Amino acid sequence: MTTDRRKVVLIGTGMVGMSFAYSLVNQGGICNELVLIDVNTVRANGEAMDLNHGLAFAKSNMKIYAGEYKDCKDADIVVIAAGVAQKEGETRLDLLKRNVEVFRSIVTPVVRSGFDGIFLVATNPVDIMTRVTYELSRFGASRVIGTGTSLDTARLRYLLGDYFTVDPKNIHAYVIGEHGDSEFVPLSQVMMATKPVMKILEDERNSYCIDDMQSIEEQVRTAAYKIIEAKRATYYGIGMALTRIVKAILGDENSVLTVSAKLCGEYGYRDVFIGVPSIIGRNGVKEIIELDLNEEEKEKFKSSVNVLNEHFDPLEL
Amino acid sequence: MTTDRRKVVLIGTGMVGMSFAYSLVNQGGICNELVLIDVNTVRANGEAMDLNHGLAFAKSNMKIYAGEYKDCKDADIVVIAAGVAQKEGETRLDLLKRNVEVFRSIVTPVVRSGFDGIFLVATNPVDIMTRVTYELSRFGASRVIGTGTSLDTARLRYLLGDYFTVDPKNIHAYVIGEHGDSEFVPLSQVMMATKPVMKILEDERNSYCIDDMQSIEEQVRTAAYKIIEAKRATYYGIGMALTRIVKAILGDENSVLTVSAKLCGEYGYRDVFIGVPSIIGRNGVKEIIELDLNEEEKEKFKSSVNVLNEHFDPLEL
Amino acid sequence: MTTDRRKVVLIGTGMVGMSFAYSLVNQGGICNELVLIDVNTVRANGEAMDLNHGLAFAKSNMKIYAGEYKDCKDADIVVIAAGVAQKEGETRLDLLKRNVEVFRSIVTPVVRSGFDGIFLVATNPVDIMTRVTYELSRFGASRVIGTGTSLDTARLRYLLGDYFTVDPKNIHAYVIGEHGDSEFVPLSQVMMATKPVMKILEDERNSYCIDDMQSIEEQVRTAAYKIIEAKRATYYGIGMALTRIVKAILGDENSVLTVSAKLCGEYGYRDVFIGVPSIIGRNGVKEIIELDLNEEEKEKFKSSVNVLNEHFDPLEL
Amino acid sequence: MTTDRRKVVLIGTGMVGMSFAYSLVNQGGICNELVLIDVNTVRANGEAMDLNHGLAFAKSNMKIYAGEYKDCKDADIVVIAAGVAQKEGETRLDLLKRNVEVFRSIVTPVVRSGFDGIFLVATNPVDIMTRVTYELSRFGASRVIGTGTSLDTARLRYLLGDYFTVDPKNIHAYVIGEHGDSEFVPLSQVMMATKPVMKILEDERNSYCIDDMQSIEEQVRTAAYKIIEAKRATYYGIGMALTRIVKAILGDENSVLTVSAKLCGEYGYRDVFIGVPSIIGRNGVKEIIELDLNEEEKEKFKSSVNVLNEHFDPLEL
Repeated sequence: MTTDRRKVVLIGTGMVGMSFAYSLVNQGGICNELVLIDVNTVRANGEAMDLNHGLAFAKSNMKIYAGEYKDCKDADIVVIAAGVAQKEGETRLDLLKRNVEVFRSIVTPVVRSGFDGIFLVATNPVDIMTRVTYELSRFGASRVIGTGTSLDTARLRYLLGDYFTVDPKNIHAYVIGEHGDSEFVPLSQVMMATKPVMKILEDERNSYCIDDMQSIEEQVRTAAYKIIEAKRATYYGIGMALTRIVKAILGDENSVLTVSAKLCGEYGYRDVFIGVPSIIGRNGVKEIIELDLNEEEKEKFKSSVNVLNEHFDPLEL
Repeated sequence: MTTDRRKVVLIGTGMVGMSFAYSLVNQGGICNELVLIDVNTVRANGEAMDLNHGLAFAKSNMKIYAGEYKDCKDADIVVIAAGVAQKEGETRLDLLKRNVEVFRSIVTPVVRSGFDGIFLVATNPVDIMTRVTYELSRFGASRVIGTGTSLDTARLRYLLGDYFTVDPKNIHAYVIGEHGDSEFVPLSQVMMATKPVMKILEDERNSYCIDDMQSIEEQVRTAAYKIIEAKRATYYGIGMALTRIVKAILGDENSVLTVSAKLCGEYGYRDVFIGVPSIIGRNGVKEIIELDLNEEEKEKFKSSVNVLNEHFDPLEL
Repeated sequence: MTTDRRKVVLIGTGMVGMSFAYSLVNQGGICNELVLIDVNTVRANGEAMDLNHGLAFAKSNMKIYAGEYKDCKDADIVVIAAGVAQKEGETRLDLLKRNVEVFRSIVTPVVRSGFDGIFLVATNPVDIMTRVTYELSRFGASRVIGTGTSLDTARLRYLLGDYFTVDPKNIHAYVIGEHGDSEFVPLSQVMMATKPVMKILEDERNSYCIDDMQSIEEQVRTAAYKIIEAKRATYYGIGMALTRIVKAILGDENSVLTVSAKLCGEYGYRDVFIGVPSIIGRNGVKEIIELDLNEEEKEKFKSSVNVLNEHFDPLEL
Repeated sequence: MTTDRRKVVLIGTGMVGMSFAYSLVNQGGICNELVLIDVNTVRANGEAMDLNHGLAFAKSNMKIYAGEYKDCKDADIVVIAAGVAQKEGETRLDLLKRNVEVFRSIVTPVVRSGFDGIFLVATNPVDIMTRVTYELSRFGASRVIGTGTSLDTARLRYLLGDYFTVDPKNIHAYVIGEHGDSEFVPLSQVMMATKPVMKILEDERNSYCIDDMQSIEEQVRTAAYKIIEAKRATYYGIGMALTRIVKAILGDENSVLTVSAKLCGEYGYRDVFIGVPSIIGRNGVKEIIELDLNEEEKEKFKSSVNVLNEHFDPLEL
């Protein structure tokens, strides 16, 4: 008999990590082994117990336990959600330096365990932290992924689906760039079915207009700030984004998701990790899809790359 | 408490109809009442019993029974899969006249029952039989739908996903026109994510080429003939296509599906029922999406419209 | 067309309530409208936004928003998870008085809204708080339910399934009584398939023994304390228990769950709300199943009833 | 990365086999490779094409193709649904001799392929054909399973759930013995939750009575005959029963199902294959559960064993 084991290790049992873990238990059938690691081992243990309680009501079984770095050895994916939380008013980039040291203490023992799978990073500023993970691990670029603008993109489609009263699955659109203030929606690439939305906006027989589009883009870009203002943190949305990416990897879906991936010449850049539509399967990033951006969009992309490089370079990694 | 009743009536318990019914039972959660009607009432009864047996293993409960036309009164959808089967060598259009009389004996009592939902037609030649249903029922155009090229489109995406090694959900493409020999794939409208596939084909750095695309299109167009040659009929694929459309309607999904819908000026035509991408929700066809076809594609569409009109007009309905 | 609306209102957006809400979003298809109410309206709003973010990745759509008591008017279920949290070292019953006043401020406006559905209570001590809800609302007994020992029972089955290496679905067993220190497992009622587990324990050809059973019972009874010790609160398990009960109600499943229900002569008692196997469907508690307890079990049940009455009576409700 | 391959080979693409295959495609996620083998290779090919068509609408992907015996080599399960169909009026046992020769031509090449998984037999008379498969394959008893009374049991629970207005999942009851005229329901083993149904029937305060129970048992026993009378064959119910058993095996569920399994002293018999509650997991039959039958039930079981031996012995296998 073939064995069917899909093992995920979660490092960092704060609200983002645990929302991801709880989402996995509730959706079911995605992986069958989940290990929780945290500097606070008592907490990791308590979280494992609480999840195991819920398991009794889940559709499919999973082995869930608090573990150690050696448990990464035969894991398929290591999800890193550790780090100091974003404070009210703190920019995403301010978090950076505090988190690099945390990552050093994580990535080194994971690699030493003999881990040979895929790193998936959720800690903000996610593009930087993904690149940090890449540098520290020396893994191949296809095997280091960040959540990037995957949540922003899903949210964009949801809002556009609502606006045009059409199933979000038939809205094809991306938020690309830094997961942060410089992210943007290339409007030339927004489609309903295979119809460019720009053509729909130009058609005067309907009431759709470009102002509404820009207000939706703004809503997506500022959503995290608003949630943080109201509840001091965001975790449910990003938890489900992590589950979505893990599903694409373990199911070898080759799905297009706007993860944070390393550019190797695409869009004219190298080295930077940034949110771009990427084909995600069992081996991580199979391919980055290079969209035909117009001049204005290319400029925005360039700004986003610059912001990321400006924050990464001083780290001298 | 709100009541949650979603009722489907299936007319015609041949292999197409029953494959649809069995698919509903296996997928579960789509409707909770299913009525089977057939001129052979003993058979309809036997089929209901066999399905009820399977129900014991299903995820969610349904009420399934052999019924009469009066049961259509409060149904949400009436699916018509009745008709004489396609014989080997018989063109889809040859079936026509034998089936119009069958439909007259069905649509009249359904309408008389007070039915106020949506007609969904699967009987071939499906574009003609959908138009026949429209004429006989005098229902509004949005409430009369045929399976059209929905199965062909799903199959096209599946094969293209395989060809490009990408999740079929990220392939956006349509088979449009008559569900038959004149159907075609507008290549200008084939996208991977939001990237036109024509651009990928033109790129000489990869091995993808237009010949392969045409061979895939040919494969989709002739699939039914090949299956009929091997097993004398096709029913599993179309059974699941019916389930998909029913799910879009009852779930008010506003999904884009290439059903057979009545043109009202879209693509420059009126009156004809033909496979076109349409937004399908609780009230049937919410909107037909008019793709920007190029000249060659417009010609092909015209031919398809002509074929359909040539076969419908002599019926003098 | 029939409308399919299933509306749930959650009162109290602390970790228990939100874990339930997030579980609903992840499992999908259970309800299609979810309203969040909290004294902290800013927080309720933030939680609704965070959940809406995740929705973009969910299988089925839901309307989620922060609302007011008037939104209960046409709800099917009002879930109460409000209340002051259990502190380390605090007994469940110590929480009582602080929570009664909170409930008065909730139940009164819910009833005034015209709400005509089912109350489902999760706040601890849950048996007392459910009875408080019953007294304050003056609803029929079948329409006021507490989570009772539903989570304990699910966990018991899970552990027994593990112990006997058999699917927990084939272990039939209950934790009954007060959700607290006096809860117990009537061993005479523990079955594997339809075989009494006592017979398996007596059989000397296997290594199963009664000591292990008692250790499992102890593990179930003390689990909450251990989780609270480690992470200061328990919420994931109870969140999924709430989802399970809501599913049984909205799906009209008539499933047997050990909710906290009002005894009306069953087991020889009246008035008290206590965890007992109950048939749960669209109208709440359809029937309480009276198990044939042996003398020792009857004594334990009596103790549990006494504990509950001793804590409820001084409230003079 | 661990590979997750679960491979099923179906031998016999008649209506029973194909209903099972179509059920697998519709339910999704159970296996990811399905091979169809039939003496009529053209037909097997056509069926694979028709299923592949449906796959485009399925939740999860599968590799489906017409194959050969050598494809059994690395399969997890070989399902045998081949054989001459039951004719109207023909007893199940009359079919026997025609089918033994068919099985010889199947089991021998499957074993020669190097197959090392589990045989699952659906061909009637299923208890005999399962034993034939056991003798021809010389596999261990735990790895040869027949559908037995699994469908009858599921149907019984469904009808009892309806009768008592309780979720069938809370009805615990079995149809045991020969899948045929001598099968029976041991009433002493029928439970609602953990309450013996005999106690409910004896209680004069309700309207439930033993006559209704017997009529339900009769209905279950004769259902196949009635369906055959109406539609000449039964296949949807048994197709879903096969899917259920395959799911229990591949998911290592250790679920209790009344499959046809070899007795090794249980119930006082040896060698015979007969429908009994068995724990089914990744290695086939983990254990047969021996119910405490009363004297009358023991007599019925004995008759059923005798019937099976009388039909098997003359085969001199």
